[in-house]
Amino acid sequence: MSSKVQELLKGFSAIVPINVAWGEMDALGHVNNIIYLRYFETSRIEFCSLLQYPGFTNVGSINSQSALGPILAAINCKYKFPVTFPDTLYSASRVKHDGIHEYGFDVEHRLVSKQHERIAAEGTASIVIYNFLARKKEKMPDEIKQRLQAL
Amino acid sequence: MSSKVQELLKGFSAIVPINVAWGEMDALGHVNNIIYLRYFETSRIEFCSLLQYPGFTNVGSINSQSALGPILAAINCKYKFPVTFPDTLYSASRVKHDGIHEYGFDVEHRLVSKQHERIAAEGTASIVIYNFLARKKEKMPDEIKQRLQAL
Amino acid sequence: MSSKVQELLKGFSAIVPINVAWGEMDALGHVNNIIYLRYFETSRIEFCSLLQYPGFTNVGSINSQSALGPILAAINCKYKFPVTFPDTLYSASRVKHDGIHEYGFDVEHRLVSKQHERIAAEGTASIVIYNFLARKKEKMPDEIKQRLQAL
Amino acid sequence: MSSKVQELLKGFSAIVPINVAWGEMDALGHVNNIIYLRYFETSRIEFCSLLQYPGFTNVGSINSQSALGPILAAINCKYKFPVTFPDTLYSASRVKHDGIHEYGFDVEHRLVSKQHERIAAEGTASIVIYNFLARKKEKMPDEIKQRLQAL
Repeated sequence: MSSKVQELLKGFSAIVPINVAWGEMDALGHVNNIIYLRYFETSRIEFCSLLQYPGFTNVGSINSQSALGPILAAINCKYKFPVTFPDTLYSASRVKHDGIHEYGFDVEHRLVSKQHERIAAEGTASIVIYNFLARKKEKMPDEIKQRLQAL
Repeated sequence: MSSKVQELLKGFSAIVPINVAWGEMDALGHVNNIIYLRYFETSRIEFCSLLQYPGFTNVGSINSQSALGPILAAINCKYKFPVTFPDTLYSASRVKHDGIHEYGFDVEHRLVSKQHERIAAEGTASIVIYNFLARKKEKMPDEIKQRLQAL
Repeated sequence: MSSKVQELLKGFSAIVPINVAWGEMDALGHVNNIIYLRYFETSRIEFCSLLQYPGFTNVGSINSQSALGPILAAINCKYKFPVTFPDTLYSASRVKHDGIHEYGFDVEHRLVSKQHERIAAEGTASIVIYNFLARKKEKMPDEIKQRLQAL
Repeated sequence: MSSKVQELLKGFSAIVPINVAWGEMDALGHVNNIIYLRYFETSRIEFCSLLQYPGFTNVGSINSQSALGPILAAINCKYKFPVTFPDTLYSASRVKHDGIHEYGFDVEHRLVSKQHERIAAEGTASIVIYNFLARKKEKMPDEIKQRLQAL
């Protein structure tokens, strides 16, 4: 990772390198717009696993310890330049400044292109704590809040 | 549906119309090769639901009546011509001739283009009856066999 | 389309019915978050074709009449409830109120579930007019602006 | 790479490591069947680039040196066990034994799971040499044939 890329990723908690797949490009010859959100998701899943809380470590799997898990309430993405194959992107996530709420938290996403040494896209995802058994949102457990503040 | 398209779909048990999405095209300006398999899957799911057997009607959902369900053991696809947006495809499935086995069955797939009135792709999927609790394949229940023969 | 669904789609310029595919659900048993953006894209492409301007009608195809085309600068999505298979969604688009700018326009997206007769997701896409030959954004042609105002 | 994994990849020309993305799992909690074909495609693109022939190195890009490129005529896949997140797969390709034909060649695919040290899937892709200007298949240039034999 070049120092320029390192600089762009400074302060992020979860950083996942992702090789762009040829088949992720669309008819315009660029990576299709929805794929950037898949790249966001991949590091968001990694970020959630850093919380070391049942249901956040292995999202979607049967879990006897906890009925809680993260669900996505909203997302946005700003596309900075069109990514093409071949390239490697660093998909980075961290909790957003002032992004810890009663029922959830906001994750800041950034995609950095290794080839161009530039930000390819940025965005924010709003996570809500969901009780999959009771089928409703739930207040964030203190352990998650503390872990988010520590990250 | 034109009579030419109808002729190409004759004898199929499950026929699902699918509008090609622009975003399913890749950098060659054609629908990407893996998407044809998604189209196959969509009518295969419909075909399985025709079997009216617990675990086949609502694949992947929690099911207290049965631990059995279909899993895909193998698939093949012959691409006849490159599909482009816009087009509507009819994704058709039926049990293959001599395709009923002890532990599963073979599904014959066909995609017909509405615009070109031609077969866009054909293939076969091999389904195995799987016991998700015991985590092993299982002999096909007689009810499924009879239903397959009746379709 | 029920009157309740019709009410939710009132005032939209492009409305595309989309059958949810089983394979679009993820390990949580819901349609994966990025797929909602694919649904948005499908009606956005339809919306752009209503502009009847070269490069907007057949996005991504070789075009001798115009080097201009729409590119996506930003998008956001609010998820209202988790969509599951089977369902049909109406993916609707219109130009956003006060959304016509010098270099592009904003598209308002809405997904309405036929089964639940509710809004499944809403969002906004920011489109920039791009010159694919000069490789830079360009001022919006008057014909597009007028057509947007007329829609 | 463990010696067991190395053994399973012996003799392959193109080997690409791919991290499974969480979002590639479907409602059964396994990587969806079509994604295996995307993994195949990724190493097939890498394999084609080894041929160092215009149109094969950068598939889908505008190319003034050659109108030729590979298109996929057929594919098959045998699923050996259900892949889950997290895992890393090695997607490997080589020309199939006796797989060089007048108008194309066959590529043997293999996916090896790093975590399970087992073959996750195997398959074959039939490639046809296509002239994108003349819009028809073409005899394989000798340079490609020689390069295939050398790999």
